[in-house]
Amino acid sequence: MLKNIDHIGIAVHSLENVKTFFLNIFGISPEFEETVAEQQVKVIGYRVGESNIEFLQPISQMSPISKYLEKRGEGLHHIAVAVEDLESVLASLKSKEIPLIDETPRTGAEGKKIAFVHPKGLFGILLELSQKNEKSNHSSQS
Amino acid sequence: MLKNIDHIGIAVHSLENVKTFFLNIFGISPEFEETVAEQQVKVIGYRVGESNIEFLQPISQMSPISKYLEKRGEGLHHIAVAVEDLESVLASLKSKEIPLIDETPRTGAEGKKIAFVHPKGLFGILLELSQKNEKSNHSSQS
Repeated sequence: MLKNIDHIGIAVHSLENVKTFFLNIFGISPEFEETVAEQQVKVIGYRVGESNIEFLQPISQMSPISKYLEKRGEGLHHIAVAVEDLESVLASLKSKEIPLIDETPRTGAEGKKIAFVHPKGLFGILLELSQKNEKSNHSSQS
Repeated sequence: MLKNIDHIGIAVHSLENVKTFFLNIFGISPEFEETVAEQQVKVIGYRVGESNIEFLQPISQMSPISKYLEKRGEGLHHIAVAVEDLESVLASLKSKEIPLIDETPRTGAEGKKIAFVHPKGLFGILLELSQKNEKSNHSSQS
């Protein structure tokens, strides 16, 4: 049911500092860089095995990451786990009265279906569940 | 240089609550359960893809996890990344004046060589680096 760690999300003040660090220490550049307008963040990601380590910098005070940084400072923000059937996992969590941030899946990066589970029902962990959208095939659109 | 996410460590008050949760929601039991006396914690781990999700419960007030729980409550505590050559990564970090908790590797669970990097030099992330000890082969000891 839980396939793999899709990514670990880390809240930071400056992606430039992260890029300098990874280049200096590990000799690597990010695999991708994007802006997620809905969350008001810029994101860069480094591939580590089958997972990404993602860094999130807010681009406005409206971003949840901005609030997080004010309250707790830089650090681990959330983990994302890939599942095979997101709807059935959400239904199972809901039936057990685990508080959900997203009761139904929404569309995340790369056309994935995603949903967040609230940390208060999950040992303080902000958990993102994600499912690859089989119907989405970017390469066939060309 | 960075091979894969070895595990994600999560600080909790009660492993029993975690076990109940995982069994009820995902129908799974922990892959392993052990006590790490040096850190004064009990640990359970669930396999997710090539990584483990590990939960840590303090067994005394001396545990660093006990202090963490008092200060920040339950939640994401550290990430561990597997590397090929721990000594060379530590030397590289040291040469760049990144503060290390362990300047030389020590032995962790499963005979692995491990070392912790201080969060203040690493975007608030408590990072454990680990390297499989090629010389350790438990099955050949029988």
